[in-house]
Amino acid sequence: MTTPRDAAVDLRRAVDSLDEHGLGAQMHAAVRELYPICRSITGEGLRRSLRILQRIAPLELREVPTGTQVFDWTVPKEWTFRSARLIGPDGEVVLDAARLNLHVLNYSAPFKGRVPLEELQEHLHSLPDKPALVPYRTSYYQEAWGFCLSEEQRRRLRPGEYQVEIDTALADGSLTYGELVVPGKQLDEVLVSTHCCHPSLANDNCAGMVMCATLAAMLGGMKPRFTYRFLFVPGTIGAIAWLALNQERGERIAHGLVAACAGDAGRLTYKRSRRGSAEIDRAAVHVLAHCGQDHGIREFVPYGYDERQYCSPGFDLPVGSLTRTPYGEYPEYHTSADDPGLVKAEKLVDTLRRYLEVFEVLEGNRAYLNLSPKCEPQLGKRGLYRSVGAQSHAVADQMAMLWVLNLSDGTRSLLDVAERSKLAFNEVLRAARALEGAGLLRPLAALGGGR
Amino acid sequence: MTTPRDAAVDLRRAVDSLDEHGLGAQMHAAVRELYPICRSITGEGLRRSLRILQRIAPLELREVPTGTQVFDWTVPKEWTFRSARLIGPDGEVVLDAARLNLHVLNYSAPFKGRVPLEELQEHLHSLPDKPALVPYRTSYYQEAWGFCLSEEQRRRLRPGEYQVEIDTALADGSLTYGELVVPGKQLDEVLVSTHCCHPSLANDNCAGMVMCATLAAMLGGMKPRFTYRFLFVPGTIGAIAWLALNQERGERIAHGLVAACAGDAGRLTYKRSRRGSAEIDRAAVHVLAHCGQDHGIREFVPYGYDERQYCSPGFDLPVGSLTRTPYGEYPEYHTSADDPGLVKAEKLVDTLRRYLEVFEVLEGNRAYLNLSPKCEPQLGKRGLYRSVGAQSHAVADQMAMLWVLNLSDGTRSLLDVAERSKLAFNEVLRAARALEGAGLLRPLAALGGGR
Amino acid sequence: MTTPRDAAVDLRRAVDSLDEHGLGAQMHAAVRELYPICRSITGEGLRRSLRILQRIAPLELREVPTGTQVFDWTVPKEWTFRSARLIGPDGEVVLDAARLNLHVLNYSAPFKGRVPLEELQEHLHSLPDKPALVPYRTSYYQEAWGFCLSEEQRRRLRPGEYQVEIDTALADGSLTYGELVVPGKQLDEVLVSTHCCHPSLANDNCAGMVMCATLAAMLGGMKPRFTYRFLFVPGTIGAIAWLALNQERGERIAHGLVAACAGDAGRLTYKRSRRGSAEIDRAAVHVLAHCGQDHGIREFVPYGYDERQYCSPGFDLPVGSLTRTPYGEYPEYHTSADDPGLVKAEKLVDTLRRYLEVFEVLEGNRAYLNLSPKCEPQLGKRGLYRSVGAQSHAVADQMAMLWVLNLSDGTRSLLDVAERSKLAFNEVLRAARALEGAGLLRPLAALGGGR
Repeated sequence: MTTPRDAAVDLRRAVDSLDEHGLGAQMHAAVRELYPICRSITGEGLRRSLRILQRIAPLELREVPTGTQVFDWTVPKEWTFRSARLIGPDGEVVLDAARLNLHVLNYSAPFKGRVPLEELQEHLHSLPDKPALVPYRTSYYQEAWGFCLSEEQRRRLRPGEYQVEIDTALADGSLTYGELVVPGKQLDEVLVSTHCCHPSLANDNCAGMVMCATLAAMLGGMKPRFTYRFLFVPGTIGAIAWLALNQERGERIAHGLVAACAGDAGRLTYKRSRRGSAEIDRAAVHVLAHCGQDHGIREFVPYGYDERQYCSPGFDLPVGSLTRTPYGEYPEYHTSADDPGLVKAEKLVDTLRRYLEVFEVLEGNRAYLNLSPKCEPQLGKRGLYRSVGAQSHAVADQMAMLWVLNLSDGTRSLLDVAERSKLAFNEVLRAARALEGAGLLRPLAALGGGR
Repeated sequence: MTTPRDAAVDLRRAVDSLDEHGLGAQMHAAVRELYPICRSITGEGLRRSLRILQRIAPLELREVPTGTQVFDWTVPKEWTFRSARLIGPDGEVVLDAARLNLHVLNYSAPFKGRVPLEELQEHLHSLPDKPALVPYRTSYYQEAWGFCLSEEQRRRLRPGEYQVEIDTALADGSLTYGELVVPGKQLDEVLVSTHCCHPSLANDNCAGMVMCATLAAMLGGMKPRFTYRFLFVPGTIGAIAWLALNQERGERIAHGLVAACAGDAGRLTYKRSRRGSAEIDRAAVHVLAHCGQDHGIREFVPYGYDERQYCSPGFDLPVGSLTRTPYGEYPEYHTSADDPGLVKAEKLVDTLRRYLEVFEVLEGNRAYLNLSPKCEPQLGKRGLYRSVGAQSHAVADQMAMLWVLNLSDGTRSLLDVAERSKLAFNEVLRAARALEGAGLLRPLAALGGGR
Repeated sequence: MTTPRDAAVDLRRAVDSLDEHGLGAQMHAAVRELYPICRSITGEGLRRSLRILQRIAPLELREVPTGTQVFDWTVPKEWTFRSARLIGPDGEVVLDAARLNLHVLNYSAPFKGRVPLEELQEHLHSLPDKPALVPYRTSYYQEAWGFCLSEEQRRRLRPGEYQVEIDTALADGSLTYGELVVPGKQLDEVLVSTHCCHPSLANDNCAGMVMCATLAAMLGGMKPRFTYRFLFVPGTIGAIAWLALNQERGERIAHGLVAACAGDAGRLTYKRSRRGSAEIDRAAVHVLAHCGQDHGIREFVPYGYDERQYCSPGFDLPVGSLTRTPYGEYPEYHTSADDPGLVKAEKLVDTLRRYLEVFEVLEGNRAYLNLSPKCEPQLGKRGLYRSVGAQSHAVADQMAMLWVLNLSDGTRSLLDVAERSKLAFNEVLRAARALEGAGLLRPLAALGGGR
């Protein structure tokens, strides 16, 4: 009989046998391949990127036509980017998006013409407090043209007429996103969502895209209890479009994570869902508490990545966000310094490992009923307890068994047991299995898992 | 259309335009005028003091006749104080209440006669551990005569016969209190109660009396949502009398504050109501948390000022107490050192400001409903969001709007939003108004405000 | 009329008049008398020990026959211990349980024969990290023979053949436990349970046995509100047997404590029941908070003494454990160093005192109703309040009365009042009695006390 617990076993095995070196190198190579592509919330760069991810996991590309109404928003015209150059008064090429695609204001309208420096200034974006870095800036919903450049570059601009050559197009087309579903034994879903609209920013979010695709590939080989849905969506509008067009599926989301910033050297950080202590929140907090590393736990705020949409009050889905250094908190964030050197192969693997461990908790968590609830059962006669008594401390798995027996009164799940006992979830799960094997415990359908 | 939010706007404007210097001088002058009057829980000194406050705000004087039964208490005989002198063996005037009215035991029975020092001692009150200060002592409900003097004065008393000349009277009359009602759009009331029975003690409570009268005058020019009731009552018996004679009005008290010790140099302190987290408690704690100064928050204890009565279990009204240094905690408390020099003009204004800010929260607090609850509405197209995106941090009012939208699911008030977001209430209120103006938010009648 | 509060008065009197010196000496003498007896979970040593306790309090001995099924367990064969000696290759007596009964593996099967050192090693138990101490080890449910010895002794064993002479017997008989019931006015019970199966270990648990017998004797002279049941049971199997054979009595347990380690020099420690904040938990935590000494509070864990059984999920009784240094946390624990020198006479009395104080709380705790709930009643006219007013601080019993009046709204017990006011329970109880005497308060039947 295949029981729903198998995926938890598979996930533990996957975690314990992660080939940190090989897998890390492979993921980092994919990050480097994605990095130079000029992505945006629509367009060919986005499609090309998703197709690269298809080599890791069989995600499908979906198209939502321009003009589609998605709640309060409208899918915009599709952006085509060909080239963008700024040529100085003496004819020299000052900026060329072919060298760094951040130079073009993302979603810039096309423009060709001569502009004096004073007028040009209004179309330039730089960072006075980080003078060596080129910022990432967008203008999705207000037609504008522009360039991004370093403050140092800007200061070197001499007066005179500049030739602007922005060869882009805004025309009817569609918004593209990637989707991959790993079917589970239950219809309830675990959502993993990551944004794929940022151009040359390696940690934010080539890293997240690659990690999610790798996760999807690993889960594809298991038979999980939950159905896992991976979404690779352009930020904000992509998540809104998916939610608008898949409302009945959204209702099935039992747990969810927004993935981003998956590869920098900073500590792991979990940002709670709006609900604050949903099972996904407790699972992620538990995994980080036992990860043996410094880590951060944040309360929900209505800012950041697409948890903003999943956690809007009309949905209020149990979706948190597991990242390394959070949104906006590393100095390279949304600048040209977020390049592949910022992403560490071993950190990509570490982030992946924690996602797998969170899934292990979700898969394995359920409530059990102690079938011998009056006094302790005699574990010794079942070979579950050492025979020589009176030693001061119970060994770890005996303690785990005693905790599971004591708390399995039908109102508590294994995650409750792990939280109260401060034992790691997988020790508790192992104890539950041993006790179930000895006929002392019975899983309950109703509690734990699901919502 | 005049909406109920107008008073919150008026209050913010009043706070932002407080004439600290002029108003402080004016309030301090009133404190100095009240200070020398010999007040008690009944009598002419009390009436004279209330009439001085009438020059600030149009409070009305009410009389409750001697012998009126008010719950477990009886309104006592009215005390008339004319003079009190103690003349030494050599004929010199040792104590004269005309110089400092604390010298007479407050509510002292009349007495005239010669008394040897040993017998006199039983009628003297001094403070061995504060030898230079004259204490304030009362004997309201047990007829007694006596003097208060400094320990130093007491030690200088030589043996011999002393002439006691206490010219007071205890006779049928009435207990007087002041009352001022600022009518609001709702019948629910905000109670502000202050005691006015203490004789020459400047901070306790000439300061509170003047601050409350000034508050009442300022509110008089607004059209608040709540009805504001200001009570200037003799301590304990006055509050009990009001509660006994106004039971149905007491039931309308939605929020209340007991004001006292409003002008010393110490930090602001809020003492919670017996309920502990009533809206008034949350409003006051919020205002102090954002006041930018050191401050104190105290749990309720059944001791202190008239919150003892308002928070008795038969009423359990949501009445806290906002003071500077609390009851009994400054060394000058209930002694001759509590003189006008202890009261600072700028502190009177600072205390007043915090009361106005608490009223702003009470007036402005209500629940709203996000009318576009599925995903975020597109603020940009309504001019509520900057157009160039991807900058790291939302500016403050964008954050306030996002918080209001995210939490306005009908179960939370703006104060809830302020508490959770850690933003100041008036930023949240401003955001709610902007969103309401854009048609994205609708105020709910049922929640927030009221009880 | 004898009211249910009498026992609380008697207990306070008992606490205040404890003859620390005499009683401590008496208890310590009993510990020394019990110490050398070779006890186990069955057998004559256990019976002899209980008969010694009968000289302190009239407990009754009960027998449960071998083979009785008690939940998942079976009462084992009775163990008879006569002697156990290990004789070396040269004929010298290496170990003799007559000198220290820890030397025989407790419940050792009989064995007589010659064994080479290598084979003998498998039957020896020592503590490599505490080389001078002999451990206490048992083998109740798996037939085995063995010796316990110090690591130093073990290292001195020379190769060769050893003569093993373990003269014990395992045969049908019974398990013995002691029981004493002090009848109360109510059928609800307070359980005090202590284990009496350990051989020569003075603190664990001759001390607990003696303290419980002394407590039982003291309570015997009172007329408590609750029925007090004292159990002197072999660990685990004894508690399980009692619970299995007395299920309807178990349901009447309103509060309970497991006593152990009652005499070491360490601080008092309370381990909460599985419920965590049952009345017994709150009472014990309150008593320790006011004991004026360093102390520890522990959360429930399903390990330790017989609270494991009382708090199993099928019972979930409100049973905590009040000890000095907890289970397994002192270096002498379960070794030959737990001898009468480890037990201090004054600590035995101190532990006893805290048990009496916990009983005082349980006996005295109930809810009262303030009969004058609107505003404060006038305490002064009833002689309960000083007449000269305006002093800064209320004296302690006035504060206690104000707290009791303020919180006695029918929903709170005196323990609630003590917790919130931070006053000692007996001050609160005294205030409640004074107010009841003045007709201001009425005890409520329904709340507080019982479950």
